[in-house]
Amino acid sequence: METAWKAGLEDVIAARSAICQVNGEAGRLYYRGYEVGELAGAVSFEEVTALLWFGELPGPAEAAAFAARLRAARGLPAPVRTLLETLPRDTHPLDALRTAVSLAAAHDPDAGANDPAANLRKAVRLMTLVPETVAASRRIRAGRAPVEAPGGDSHGAYVLELCEGRTPSPETARILDVVLTLHADHEFNASTFAARVAVATLADLHAAVVAAIATLKGPRQGGANEDVLAMLLEIGDPARAEAFVERRLHARAALSKHERGAPTARVPGFGHRVYRVDDARARVLRAMAKSTAAATGRTRLFEVAERVYDAMRARTTLPVNVDFFSAVVYDALGIPPDLCTSIFAVGRVAGWCAHALEQLADNRLIRPRAEYVGPAPRPLPARSEGRR
Amino acid sequence: METAWKAGLEDVIAARSAICQVNGEAGRLYYRGYEVGELAGAVSFEEVTALLWFGELPGPAEAAAFAARLRAARGLPAPVRTLLETLPRDTHPLDALRTAVSLAAAHDPDAGANDPAANLRKAVRLMTLVPETVAASRRIRAGRAPVEAPGGDSHGAYVLELCEGRTPSPETARILDVVLTLHADHEFNASTFAARVAVATLADLHAAVVAAIATLKGPRQGGANEDVLAMLLEIGDPARAEAFVERRLHARAALSKHERGAPTARVPGFGHRVYRVDDARARVLRAMAKSTAAATGRTRLFEVAERVYDAMRARTTLPVNVDFFSAVVYDALGIPPDLCTSIFAVGRVAGWCAHALEQLADNRLIRPRAEYVGPAPRPLPARSEGRR
Repeated sequence: METAWKAGLEDVIAARSAICQVNGEAGRLYYRGYEVGELAGAVSFEEVTALLWFGELPGPAEAAAFAARLRAARGLPAPVRTLLETLPRDTHPLDALRTAVSLAAAHDPDAGANDPAANLRKAVRLMTLVPETVAASRRIRAGRAPVEAPGGDSHGAYVLELCEGRTPSPETARILDVVLTLHADHEFNASTFAARVAVATLADLHAAVVAAIATLKGPRQGGANEDVLAMLLEIGDPARAEAFVERRLHARAALSKHERGAPTARVPGFGHRVYRVDDARARVLRAMAKSTAAATGRTRLFEVAERVYDAMRARTTLPVNVDFFSAVVYDALGIPPDLCTSIFAVGRVAGWCAHALEQLADNRLIRPRAEYVGPAPRPLPARSEGRR
Repeated sequence: METAWKAGLEDVIAARSAICQVNGEAGRLYYRGYEVGELAGAVSFEEVTALLWFGELPGPAEAAAFAARLRAARGLPAPVRTLLETLPRDTHPLDALRTAVSLAAAHDPDAGANDPAANLRKAVRLMTLVPETVAASRRIRAGRAPVEAPGGDSHGAYVLELCEGRTPSPETARILDVVLTLHADHEFNASTFAARVAVATLADLHAAVVAAIATLKGPRQGGANEDVLAMLLEIGDPARAEAFVERRLHARAALSKHERGAPTARVPGFGHRVYRVDDARARVLRAMAKSTAAATGRTRLFEVAERVYDAMRARTTLPVNVDFFSAVVYDALGIPPDLCTSIFAVGRVAGWCAHALEQLADNRLIRPRAEYVGPAPRPLPARSEGRR
């Protein structure tokens, strides 16, 4: 067994992967060799999904066939809708999503099958199940019925129509398409790694996505997304941003190492395990946050975000991450804070499936060891032995 | 980043832990320093749970208080029962369990809280929720109602009464108690590691247990349990065991490396990532399998198991693992093959909670890296650029 080790498996390689390349020093991210900023908006999220799953961008005929396959999978399963209708109103959207995907496994036409063709069919169904569940759950919580037979030629337009019940403008659909592409994959982030740990036992694809959603919820991963929007809304006024950051950093300096782990002790949207400089996705999202804020008139939140960003740059070396400006874009799209992580999942499910399929294609059980730091072998205390 | 790495994180240390020590060379297993074979039967599963969670065996008063706390948490939440009643009859028990625990999160009185006291309350509830769900799900599938207000002084007796609707004999309750203790923890096995990956994002305890159940399902982990019992029942006659093993190993030799990964290409119950010799738990279970088979008269299955064991020892160096003889004990307890992994979960939930609580007490995001083996950075093909 190794004797040197890194807490949190930092910089430790867990497996080979041909899907996603992260260059933390340069702040660059590639899907199958294509820089994510070049892909976003140039090709559709559906094409990006096909790229992640199959290794190459589809040609026009393949792209059309793949998009048609996704459209054919549309439709929230009735038992999942029934489940969502019976959840308490204050159920966290990610708890609802996790339970819904877990339930859908039992109703999947390929339940029990674990061959490559069945897994691909399941992956296609999971791509539509996730947004259908997110949207239906949100509407039901607001006292509205899920949207019946929504249209939407693209996946982005479909997702927005699922949420709002009306055809989105091409520009709005394009914004969501870009957001989904930017969130589609990120190597062995915690949720994707959890998906790989699950399927490495030869558990099925739904199990992998359930494990991923369970892991995504934490504020150290997807949960940070909603913390950003909640923080920006709490600050509210650009003039208050600097003092807020100052206060938060000052309070943090007084905390113990353990207390600093609490989400409330951080400025969410900054810092990342892998990146040393601003994240490539954050750069695209910052520009998009500015233009969408201008288009929707919600410029105040963007200004708050800019001031927080400047205040953090002046005081820390923490790079801005994907969560920060995406929160402003979500707000412009009318997405409330507690739904941000769900929208993250709508994009990331493409990557979860890509990694689950890649893991299954050349599998090895993922089973690390612990450094044992507990008591040495010891005999049972006398009173227990007396009971044998 | 490291350049050398081990597939499946084999022998790689992922974190410190004071809970469980596995000595793979000697085939020994310790919970907090106590050898598992000495604990099993000498102290109750409830005391073992307290040991795993708090670090020391409870004194008599503490043990009584902890057992009372577990009893006070009893009672299947009504929404979980409703869910189980609506699942398709052929739902895999672990899919039902995973969905039920995920749903219970939304109904938990401490939903949203993530402080140590709330997490301990959740852990106590999860200890009873898992067997209640397993038993109710099994009964409902068989067209029977869940047992109303079951008694059972000990956890083992409670679990058996939940399943059968009648008070078990002290000897049967003791057998289950020992089985639960033997399955209670096993360091960073895949499901426990998944639980730690989930909570390391600061996701909640239910999320951790859901990720663990999702991971447990695979035949490379808990799923192997049911494969053993199915195999022994398929062999049926001790006289056929040797030929069966011979055939399976012969067929395996002709397979490609990839095909050998399939569960059907293995003799389940043999081989382990960590152990090089017979597993300590297997030794206890083998003795118990013999005595329970004698007591219940189901000696034929034990004889089949013994023959398979001898045939494997004569032909391979693979050690026997915990799954093999536990299958015979499960059969003697009247547990059908597809419920074996659920009973595994009834014991292992103690360890999942112990590890989740330990991870949260000194947390670090678990986020490894991939060795990227895909295409080098490349420009978008012309047709895509034309569409921008």
